[in-house]
Parts: sequence; C-alpha cells; structure tokens
Amino acid sequence: MKQFELSKEFLENLQLGIEQENAAFILTALDGVNVADIAALLDELSSLESIYVLRLLERQLAADVLIELNETTLTKVLPGLETSEVASWIQAMDSDDAADILSLFSEKEREEIISEIEDRVKLEQIVELLRYEEDTAGGIMAKEVLRANKNWNVVQTINEIRRQAENVEKIYSIYVVNNKQHLLGRVSLKKIILASSDTIIEDIIDENIISVPVHMDQEEVAALMRKYDLESVPVVNAKNKLVGRITVDDILDVVQEEADEDIQAMAGVSADIEESDSIFTISKARLPWLLIGVIGGLMGAKIIGFFEDGLSKYLALASFIPLVAATGGNVGIQASSLIVQSLASKSAFDDTLIQRFLKGFLVAILNGLVLGGFVFLVVVFLYGFESLFGITVGVALFCVVLLSSFMGTVTPLVLHRIGVNPAIASGPFITTTNDLLGLAVYFGVAVLLLNL
Amino acid sequence: MKQFELSKEFLENLQLGIEQENAAFILTALDGVNVADIAALLDELSSLESIYVLRLLERQLAADVLIELNETTLTKVLPGLETSEVASWIQAMDSDDAADILSLFSEKEREEIISEIEDRVKLEQIVELLRYEEDTAGGIMAKEVLRANKNWNVVQTINEIRRQAENVEKIYSIYVVNNKQHLLGRVSLKKIILASSDTIIEDIIDENIISVPVHMDQEEVAALMRKYDLESVPVVNAKNKLVGRITVDDILDVVQEEADEDIQAMAGVSADIEESDSIFTISKARLPWLLIGVIGGLMGAKIIGFFEDGLSKYLALASFIPLVAATGGNVGIQASSLIVQSLASKSAFDDTLIQRFLKGFLVAILNGLVLGGFVFLVVVFLYGFESLFGITVGVALFCVVLLSSFMGTVTPLVLHRIGVNPAIASGPFITTTNDLLGLAVYFGVAVLLLNL
Repeated sequence: MKQFELSKEFLENLQLGIEQENAAFILTALDGVNVADIAALLDELSSLESIYVLRLLERQLAADVLIELNETTLTKVLPGLETSEVASWIQAMDSDDAADILSLFSEKEREEIISEIEDRVKLEQIVELLRYEEDTAGGIMAKEVLRANKNWNVVQTINEIRRQAENVEKIYSIYVVNNKQHLLGRVSLKKIILASSDTIIEDIIDENIISVPVHMDQEEVAALMRKYDLESVPVVNAKNKLVGRITVDDILDVVQEEADEDIQAMAGVSADIEESDSIFTISKARLPWLLIGVIGGLMGAKIIGFFEDGLSKYLALASFIPLVAATGGNVGIQASSLIVQSLASKSAFDDTLIQRFLKGFLVAILNGLVLGGFVFLVVVFLYGFESLFGITVGVALFCVVLLSSFMGTVTPLVLHRIGVNPAIASGPFITTTNDLLGLAVYFGVAVLLLNL
Repeated sequence: MKQFELSKEFLENLQLGIEQENAAFILTALDGVNVADIAALLDELSSLESIYVLRLLERQLAADVLIELNETTLTKVLPGLETSEVASWIQAMDSDDAADILSLFSEKEREEIISEIEDRVKLEQIVELLRYEEDTAGGIMAKEVLRANKNWNVVQTINEIRRQAENVEKIYSIYVVNNKQHLLGRVSLKKIILASSDTIIEDIIDENIISVPVHMDQEEVAALMRKYDLESVPVVNAKNKLVGRITVDDILDVVQEEADEDIQAMAGVSADIEESDSIFTISKARLPWLLIGVIGGLMGAKIIGFFEDGLSKYLALASFIPLVAATGGNVGIQASSLIVQSLASKSAFDDTLIQRFLKGFLVAILNGLVLGGFVFLVVVFLYGFESLFGITVGVALFCVVLLSSFMGTVTPLVLHRIGVNPAIASGPFITTTNDLLGLAVYFGVAVLLLNL
C-alpha cells in the first residue's frame, strides 16, 4: 500500500520535467499517483503544461484526470485540445462525466466532437444526458446501470452482470425490469451471491424501492437519498422506464455545493470564488454586496437626518443607534436561517404557515421582552439616564426585535416561493433592510415617547 | 413497486389504532412502509405510543427503526424500554449503530445492557467502538468489514464473502489482509466476479488504496472521501491492522451536519434546534447570541457617548454611524467566510500565511478605495455636505474596511488554531467586535480631520 503526499517540491520537479520535455521522467513520477492527486497537480500548472501531461497519459487515465480537474482549469485546458482527442477521451468516460465535459464546449464545438464519437451506444447516452437540466436527477445521473430481467435465474444474471459490468464503474444495486424496461425493483449483489444458482430473480426481488423521476431537483434527490440511506437510486422517465441511476458519491458533491452556496449567500459573496483566485476576481465578487450595504447606510443617514431636530434636543439617542441596528440584523439572520433550514428538510408533518408565524411571533415577543428589559435596566441603573429615556430605548428594541423577526421569517418564504435561493435572505440584503426599518422604528418611538 | 406518502391522515389513523391497542391494524398499516418513514411517524408520536409500536415490530425491523429515530425522540423513548429489549435490538444492529444507541445511556445503564448481550463477537466490537471519540474515524466506522486473505483464490473468497456477508449490510469493497490482519489493499466485487475461479487474490489486488487512521477527524475523512470519490474507506490502527470501515452514506450525514453547524454558527444559534422545537427551546438557543450583540451595542453607546462633545458640534456625524457599522460587519463576514471555506478544503499548494494576509490586504485596499470614494461623492455632491466632512466619512470608511478585513481574516485562523469551529468568526461575535472597532475608528478619524 502506497501513501502519496502532494508537495510543492514534487510540483516543481514535475514542471522541470515538462520544461525539458522529459516524458519518461514525468510518467515515472506520476506512476501510481492517485487520479485526484494528478488532477490537483494539473490544477496548479499552466494550460500548456497540463495539456502536455494529459497527452502523455494513457487514454483511460487521461480521461479520469480530465473529469477531476477543477472548472477553472478545464475552461483553460479544453480550448487547447484537438477535437479528436476530446472525442477519444470522452468515450473512455461514464456517460454522465462525458456529458459534463461536453457541456463546457460551445454548441458548434460540441457537435464537432460528437461527430467523432464512434461508440454508437455511448453517443446516444451522452446526447440523451445533454438534454436534461444540469440541476435535475437527469442532469446528474449516469446511463450505465446494471439491469436484470425478472425472468432470469441467478446464473444468467451473473453472466449478464459480467458482461455489463465492463461499462459500470462501481456495482451498487442491480435493478430488475420487465421486457418493456419498466422498473420493478432491485436485487442486491449480496442476495445474488447468497442465492442458489437456479433461483429466479423475481423470487428474490425487493419491490419496495424508491426511484426518482428524471426532472426531480438534485437537492430533493439528495434529501431523499440521505433520509432513506440509499447508496444508489434508479431514475425513471414519465412511463416508469429505467433510464439511469444516481450514486451517493455524486450526491456528496451536491450536498457540499448546496451548503457552500448557502454559506456564500449568507456571507454576501456573489460568485463561486476561492481564496486562490486573483485579487480582482475576489474584489469583484464582494463589491456588489458591500455596495448594497453602503447604499443602505446612506439611506440610513437620510432617515437619521430627518430626525436631526429631535437628535439635537436629545443627543444620547445617537449613542444607541448601533445597538438598535445590530440587534435588528442579528434577529433577522436567526429567524431566516431557521426557515431556510426547515425549507431544505421538509416533512409531511410540518406546521402550517400560520402556525409558523405564530410561533416565530411568540419567540420574538419572549426575546424582545428579555432584551428590552435588560437594556432598560442597564441604561437607567448603570448608565444613569432618566427612566423615560430607558423606556424609550427598551420599547424601541422590543419593536425592532418583533419587526426583524417578522421580516426574517417572511423574506425567505417569499424568496422560496418565487424560486430564489432563500439563503440570501440571511445575507447583506436583509440585514440592510432590517437596519433601515430598525432606525425608523427607533426614532419613531423616540418622537412619540420623548415628545420630540 | 410501491411509493408510500406520509400524511397527517395516516398518522391520525395510526394513533387511533394505538389508542384502541389494535395490533393487527397497526402491523397491516405499517406493512411495506420504509424504515425511515416508520421512524418519521414515530418521531411525531408520544414516547408511550412509540414504544407500543416498536414492541409490535419484528426484532430486526424494530432495531432498524430505532436507528432512524431523531435524537429528541430517542432520548424520550430509550428510558422507557427494558434493558433486555434494548440488548436484543442492539444485537440486530451494525456495531456502529449499536454503539451510537448505547452512547445515549448513562454509564450504569450501558453496563446493564452490555451484560445482557449474548453475541460475544458483537459485544467486543461494540465495546471497542465505544472507546473512540464521537467525531473521529473510529467513532463513525463500523466493525463489519469484508476481508480476504491475500493467499485465497477467488472461489475461497466468494465462499468466505457468502459467510461474512450475513453480517454486512452493504457490500462495497473487500479488503485484503495478510495473516496478521495488516491491510494490504482491496479487491472490488466486480473484479472477483470477472476473474476466473482459480485466480489468487494477491494477483488481482489493488494496492494503491487510501486508508484512514482511527483517530482522524471525521471532517478530514469526509474531505478525503470526497476528493478521491471513495465509496468506502478502510480504517486502520497504529499498527496498520484493519479495524473497520466507513461508508459514503455515513459521510453524507457528516457533510450535512458540518454544513448545518457552520450555518448555525454564522447565524448565531447555539444549539442544534429545529423549527419544530418548543418556543422556549428556540428562544433559549437564540438569546445568548443576541445578548452578545446587545452588550456590544451598549458598549458602542459608551464609545459614542465619549465623543458627545464632538457630536454636538457636528450632528451629521450621527447620521453615518449605521453606514460605518454595517460596512464593517459585512466586510468582516466576507473575509472570514472565505478563510473558513479554505480551511475546510486545504490543499498542499495553499498560499502561505503571509501571502494570504497580503492578498486580503490588497483586496481590502481596492474595495475600501471604491467604497470610500463612492461615499465621498454621494455625501458631498448629492447630500451637499462640505468636502472636509465628505473626506472624513470616506477616509473613515476606508479605514474600517481595512480593519474589518484584517479582523475577519485573523479571527477564523486563530479560532482554528485553538481548535474552535472557525465558522463562528462569521457570526454575531465578530460582527459585534467589528462594529465597536468601526465606531472607534470613525470618531477617531472625525476628531483628527474635523478638529473636534
């Protein structure tokens, strides 16, 4: 067993080898290195260097490495390759990976590559996969699926699996179909191995299985596979014909991507950027969200300016502006993140919309009372302000908690309804809105209670 | 094939059946319902109702359902069960699930249950697993693993797999060991099925595999399995002896849990709460973080109060307090979330610490110039303030962007170094700190430039 560790030294040696066009050295260096590690190395090289290495590798290995490259590298490397090379490598891939790579080319290039694919079965599979939306079951499924006819016996099935298995990377389940390819159930490899050789598949079939339709959203597929602990799930078309399968390692990527997306939305970073991107890319991804906050702040300045008269009479009001704004923002984020989480894991027994609002409202009243009371005590007894001023700040805080909680609950629900990722409700946009509402409420309460 | 849909009606019928103690009705109703769905139903029932249903089910089914119950239900249900029942069900579980259930009991109860376990092998496996930390490879691995000796031939191996497979839920890889149980590599079931019957395992072994040590953190295991697209990974002890295996469906839960944890940390919710929890539970989970914000706000009031003289001379300064505070918070969250993300997916080619700081600094200068310039223009030309005041607000904003970016970069790195989840750096704590620093910088710049 070999444990290989990527290092900067290894990378530098590799680059030296490429510079000297020392093919033998490169191949020896990469011998036995894991596909994902080779891809990680290529991600660090220039596109010309990467292409040089890819061309040295065996066809299957080159195809495997290509799949593992990150998207930035792919968009640099793919345009530098010959159509015939891409066509050859793509035929060595699973259909879903092939379709993913092809989708990165322009329509014209894609057609050129497809015209060079000789394997007719693979070609049909890839063309079918290219039709599905990227984020659906169809978009992430592979066409390679082990299928057994319900009338076969175990020996026939094992022979068929031997034949089919050449095209299938990993064996999870074997799906059972009738003569029309309609999905009937599954048999586990374990059951086939344990059964006597003349057993008919129909007698060991597990009919109680879960399948997903081609158009199901990938997030829903992920939730389903997590809930039911599935290692693979069959994909069926509208007529219940078995068209593909999704395996749990594809889903692992979906779960991680969706989580990253949510976190980026909450943090207010628009594009999918990494720390290794250039300064301008990072800056560009951050500026729009910061500008929203700044514009909100400038509007806040107008609101405060509107109450300047009152402020000049009661200067201490200015001191508690950050308190009110920050609490509004924090309450809003908490409320919205809870809603976002519950939207992601729906259950048949969820509370109704009215129950949710009522509950959020009660939590807000409770928290508002505690926080408002606490602030009143500190302002009056610790900071020594008159009680009426303490009441003003306390009441304002209470109102802001209620309002922010309401906004934090409603916004993600509305966003979800109109098909936008509700996680952005926990980001700078809602924080800014809550800040402004909070300011208006604060000074409104002050005008009323302090007679300004 | 059966598609079962959970519904409130079904739940109500089930509850009626339980009330009438109609065992036949309940068993008929639950016949063919998926384990995860039965568990979801029990999660909605009272603990007495749940226990009544569990006792009706077959031993294996009851064990499977028990594993799938959510933790709130488990903590209600487990104390109501007999020690002998738990012991019986636990023996029908995989060792990792059995250890998970046992870890929910007090030490005394645990020993009582263990003393009733008859299966000696299972007992040893469970006791071993209970020794490992919950969040490590050892804590999430299962002891049930298919192993083949390197000297066996394919027929011997298939016979052994048939024997061992009874205890293994799903077959992924078969691990190859020597006589001392040291891990040498793996053979895929596919290779065994495709090989001729007299082939020796050593000849079809894949030695280039990845294993993880028992003490590796589960997040690291998840990252490794994602990177290398592994469907299962063998776990070895310090002497490279094969002690267990982790499968990708366990990792799916790890990835989802870690993501939820990060999002909750960012949103400032301390405990793992769900929308279905009680009002007091939700309120209690939220209040501590809100209090941090409120205390920060009260400290902010002191800072502003300190500059009250200047503020009375230049009242407009108050108007731009929210702008400065909000921008500081937003910049801090953006910077820290990028660091958190890069900490979660380390690579050998990461920038050094100094390179990171330099890069973050340059991005901050760029963004600070754009935002400061923009605000200067609006304040002077749109809002009609004198240029010196515009310069003050612009410069203060620039300084706040730099400072917040620095804090947002440093805080998660420090937290990570001392073993705390760095995601809390994007939460209320850092936002509050940045607010305070921002206020100090803002008024400091104002005092200097406006001669207050």
